[in-house]
Amino acid sequence: MTRFALKLEYDGRGFVGWQRQSTGVSVQQVVENAAAHLFGGQMPSCVAAGRTDAGVHAAGQIVQIDLPDHLGTRAVREALNFHMRPYAVAVVAVGIINDTSWSARFSATAREYRYVILNRMARPALALGFVWHVKTPLDEGRMDVAGQSLIGLHDFTSFRATACQARSPLRTIDRLDVTRDGDRVIVRVGARSFLHHQVRNIVGSLKLVGQGKWPIDRIAAVLAARDRAAAGPTAPPDGLTLIDVRYPFDPFADQQ
Amino acid sequence: MTRFALKLEYDGRGFVGWQRQSTGVSVQQVVENAAAHLFGGQMPSCVAAGRTDAGVHAAGQIVQIDLPDHLGTRAVREALNFHMRPYAVAVVAVGIINDTSWSARFSATAREYRYVILNRMARPALALGFVWHVKTPLDEGRMDVAGQSLIGLHDFTSFRATACQARSPLRTIDRLDVTRDGDRVIVRVGARSFLHHQVRNIVGSLKLVGQGKWPIDRIAAVLAARDRAAAGPTAPPDGLTLIDVRYPFDPFADQQ
Repeated sequence: MTRFALKLEYDGRGFVGWQRQSTGVSVQQVVENAAAHLFGGQMPSCVAAGRTDAGVHAAGQIVQIDLPDHLGTRAVREALNFHMRPYAVAVVAVGIINDTSWSARFSATAREYRYVILNRMARPALALGFVWHVKTPLDEGRMDVAGQSLIGLHDFTSFRATACQARSPLRTIDRLDVTRDGDRVIVRVGARSFLHHQVRNIVGSLKLVGQGKWPIDRIAAVLAARDRAAAGPTAPPDGLTLIDVRYPFDPFADQQ
Repeated sequence: MTRFALKLEYDGRGFVGWQRQSTGVSVQQVVENAAAHLFGGQMPSCVAAGRTDAGVHAAGQIVQIDLPDHLGTRAVREALNFHMRPYAVAVVAVGIINDTSWSARFSATAREYRYVILNRMARPALALGFVWHVKTPLDEGRMDVAGQSLIGLHDFTSFRATACQARSPLRTIDRLDVTRDGDRVIVRVGARSFLHHQVRNIVGSLKLVGQGKWPIDRIAAVLAARDRAAAGPTAPPDGLTLIDVRYPFDPFADQQ
């Protein structure tokens, strides 16, 4: 068996999320069903760097999967892309991993998410499903300043889903910036790992700062409260995309 | 009556194009049907800066429409956006035009289109319907150099649809540049006006230069041939978006 790393792109609409669930089609199921064709019908299992929720997109999701030795990276990419049709999932890169202790999930040293808010009166026509539509004007400068209080190692209980199964609420946010590109407000967050709903809960609170409903220093107060009820509502999944996952080495260094 | 300028955004999929046709739903029909609600059911007619084809998108289409005097820009925007549901069309700005000789179509001094090619092996999952998927590697530098031979006033017979109804094949291209952003090759073309399929025919030929199938100077030779058969095939509509239209004055200067 050979361990492969896959870089996936997917449109989160129409999926119940990354993880297999009885309630609908998951990205994991689409990938594993396609991989079964490379495995004589036996169902392989794969592990993703980020267990994205229903409606959350990926441009750089990383997945590990063990497949028979004789397969090359090109054959894996083409076969998976063929068998995953017509689902909106594509394997954009495949790498062979020689270190069998490598895990797409546990070896990741950095994950980056992007959240896009469409900040204008008119509803989205071109980016429907890929943005959170907020009509009232947002001050991205205030949001950016407020976000800086989340940088570093903190107890993120206030920003984790009550259903979050992680053992510890401690996480380290390495980077958080809020910028504007025309009528889009873009939040980028980088961390080694995230709690369930952490980015969406942060965005839901920063939006209140951007609207002027909350003072800038309320974000630090919410963090210190260690109480989910202190934070704002969870932002919808539409605007969220898993952009990038980093490892101590590039899993795709030798492949294109 | 007051003349209004509308700035529209739309997803070209699912429409037969801008113009009314008996074969399906057009963007014009959706806008005019919505405007009829502001007109006591009478059907107003509107004129667009660019008569985009089926599958072609717009981020900055400009439309003129005459509506009763008492309506404000905000009311027009909100009413149209309400009545155009659930179609993927949105009015993003509304301006009042005091110069009744102003025409969204004939007063335009510059139009800009963007064409996006997804240049990688894997099929698109996130941008499906918004890109032309070209698997073989493209050299965007060669495409950019070749495109410069189209700048200026020329007879574009080689790059116009045989069905094009414009009286003259003469057009002036002000700007054409080809750049790369990761796996996307982006062609931007600016001109006062375009012939039918002109951008898509240019992109279809530049792609052959990018693949190395054509030498760079073949684009100049195709232009000089004044023969549609000399050029490459028409690129698909998916990658094309009408980005911007300019006038001697900003139709939305006084409105937000």
